[in-house]
Amino acid sequence: MSTNRLEAFSDGVLAVAITLLVLDIGVPPVTEHQTLFHALVHQWPHYAAYVTSFITIGIIWINHHAMIGRLRITDHAILGLNLLLLLSIAVLPFATALMAAYLKESKGQHLAAGVYAGAFLVMSIFFTILQRHILLHKPHMLTAEMPEERRRLILNRSIRGLGPYVVATAVAILSAYVSLAICLAIAIYYALPIASGGAVGGTDF
Amino acid sequence: MSTNRLEAFSDGVLAVAITLLVLDIGVPPVTEHQTLFHALVHQWPHYAAYVTSFITIGIIWINHHAMIGRLRITDHAILGLNLLLLLSIAVLPFATALMAAYLKESKGQHLAAGVYAGAFLVMSIFFTILQRHILLHKPHMLTAEMPEERRRLILNRSIRGLGPYVVATAVAILSAYVSLAICLAIAIYYALPIASGGAVGGTDF
Amino acid sequence: MSTNRLEAFSDGVLAVAITLLVLDIGVPPVTEHQTLFHALVHQWPHYAAYVTSFITIGIIWINHHAMIGRLRITDHAILGLNLLLLLSIAVLPFATALMAAYLKESKGQHLAAGVYAGAFLVMSIFFTILQRHILLHKPHMLTAEMPEERRRLILNRSIRGLGPYVVATAVAILSAYVSLAICLAIAIYYALPIASGGAVGGTDF
Amino acid sequence: MSTNRLEAFSDGVLAVAITLLVLDIGVPPVTEHQTLFHALVHQWPHYAAYVTSFITIGIIWINHHAMIGRLRITDHAILGLNLLLLLSIAVLPFATALMAAYLKESKGQHLAAGVYAGAFLVMSIFFTILQRHILLHKPHMLTAEMPEERRRLILNRSIRGLGPYVVATAVAILSAYVSLAICLAIAIYYALPIASGGAVGGTDF
Repeated sequence: MSTNRLEAFSDGVLAVAITLLVLDIGVPPVTEHQTLFHALVHQWPHYAAYVTSFITIGIIWINHHAMIGRLRITDHAILGLNLLLLLSIAVLPFATALMAAYLKESKGQHLAAGVYAGAFLVMSIFFTILQRHILLHKPHMLTAEMPEERRRLILNRSIRGLGPYVVATAVAILSAYVSLAICLAIAIYYALPIASGGAVGGTDF
Repeated sequence: MSTNRLEAFSDGVLAVAITLLVLDIGVPPVTEHQTLFHALVHQWPHYAAYVTSFITIGIIWINHHAMIGRLRITDHAILGLNLLLLLSIAVLPFATALMAAYLKESKGQHLAAGVYAGAFLVMSIFFTILQRHILLHKPHMLTAEMPEERRRLILNRSIRGLGPYVVATAVAILSAYVSLAICLAIAIYYALPIASGGAVGGTDF
Repeated sequence: MSTNRLEAFSDGVLAVAITLLVLDIGVPPVTEHQTLFHALVHQWPHYAAYVTSFITIGIIWINHHAMIGRLRITDHAILGLNLLLLLSIAVLPFATALMAAYLKESKGQHLAAGVYAGAFLVMSIFFTILQRHILLHKPHMLTAEMPEERRRLILNRSIRGLGPYVVATAVAILSAYVSLAICLAIAIYYALPIASGGAVGGTDF
Repeated sequence: MSTNRLEAFSDGVLAVAITLLVLDIGVPPVTEHQTLFHALVHQWPHYAAYVTSFITIGIIWINHHAMIGRLRITDHAILGLNLLLLLSIAVLPFATALMAAYLKESKGQHLAAGVYAGAFLVMSIFFTILQRHILLHKPHMLTAEMPEERRRLILNRSIRGLGPYVVATAVAILSAYVSLAICLAIAIYYALPIASGGAVGGTDF
């Protein structure tokens, strides 16, 4: 089976998930003691979580693109693992809304940040599992022959990409703000050209 | 007419439907007597229904892919039947939300589970009708000639795939939990590589 | 400019609009004096409006497919007119929700039905305008040369397709139910194979 | 890396964003002293903002199409800048809802209009940055060789396209209505065939 429709469907899910994020940014009501300006500023956690999640999903799209681009054909196992990866991405609008709603609440902020960073970690783990399955178990399905050394190099990049999210998830116990800041820093780092080749699965082109 | 745009449109509807499922998982409010942790745990039916529906739509996508992949060209009848199939898939976010909302309610849980499993059954029936129409009535539109025996084999797989959903729908009268568990089990079974060739229309590649 | 991306973008908008329709079917609350069964039955206008709009958007997709499939290249005027057509389609989830909410209300039901049928009429008018522009003003952009007689035939089908919606819109003044029934009948009629070549712009393949 | 999947993903995000706009147009409730007709007329800011945003996103899609169509291949920097552009587009449903909700409110209307026009300005700036990056820094990636003069001409059109949005944003301090009217006028102007070659980045075909 060719990879065309796998790419089309994955692109669709990622495009919808990344665009649905905006539904979490509601229009704030204005009270007697608050101007619209203050109401808008007050919901800054929603903007921070929005930008972080948007860039992260964008990067996972770039990396997914690279990963599937190496494939010539696909099979049931790859489709199944890809579906799990999409599930972990499609759930991000919920994790983002949770983080935004509780970031400033004394009750629940640590758990919300942990769920948020943890959702990115789970997504990265599913990405790495699919990456590993393709590179180590299905090398005959790649578009071009690739020495094992090179394949292990790409896989190791994906594995190293998990590290920062492990830290972000663990740090949530101490500070929700620092955890969010780490997630945002990871997103910006990998969006910058200097990082081409790296993280959240390892850009590879 | 070529099948390209049929695939593109179907992929679009399936990608949107599968991603819209997340809108049902709301951010729970925290009350004085409940931590965020308990509030999140308390809405587990939403996660269970989400995962079940996500994997099921993913599998129907894989099977749809295989079914349309066999076609060289398409016609008005196929487009019409495909539209009915898409309708039965696009309605799943509603059935999922209904199931999640009533699973733990003494009043309505059986009906909600019946509607949920029944929605999967209806989807599978529309899938089988389209499968039957293509394989038995339009064999001249297939990409490659295929002996009738082989075509009947694929169709029988689709028909057998209806059985588990008939059971899940009937069981809803006795227990909503068991009905949901059956739907989840069906989804996981067909997502596993061992089941390639089988269910919800019959994977065939 | 080639028509590939025009088709991809249009397919995207139509796929999202058709799938968003489900968001209008909410999970009903259960009161002390009402079972879930009655609550579900009670919101039948939402199902009727959902099915009507879903099939209608599906048919406009089929017809759009045929209309753009005749084009070899595209230009700014076609893109602009296509954008207006997409606008009239993208607004249908609102018209559908309005119809469903007011169908049974003594106050507002006629206007809601008029807006609903009127929205389909506007969509059909924009479709016909684009059809006319392509067939009469841009015949040199078609994939194959086509005698004027044939082009006028296709255009006349699109124009005749406006009639039923004019009736449905006018009838809304007398009865919202009859207006909705006409819209549903139009949708079913054109979805049936016998109608290939006809309505909502005229299927032409 | 080829530009196919970049186009597919961008088309997806734009198609979802443009179609999500409709979710802001809610079904109005009818009170004792108000007919549905008045309730519908009363929410005209939502229609005005809807049409303005819909056409504007449609035009940015046409221009994005032209910009990426000039590219033969793509790289990490282009993907990164494109992601920022998509972020600025995906946020428009929020800016549109904000504008619609506050246009008639004495408290907040100026800020809401400023955010709305400002969001279009930011989108145009990101568009121009990507346009500039492609034309001046990556001329070797274009499908056809293009003299620098021609490249600067296209870029200058994009830069001139910023002007009207600077005006619309500044005017918001004086009148929210005039600011919205300017945004709508810009959209209509560029949708008309006469403007081919121009604004919001500069149509170029």
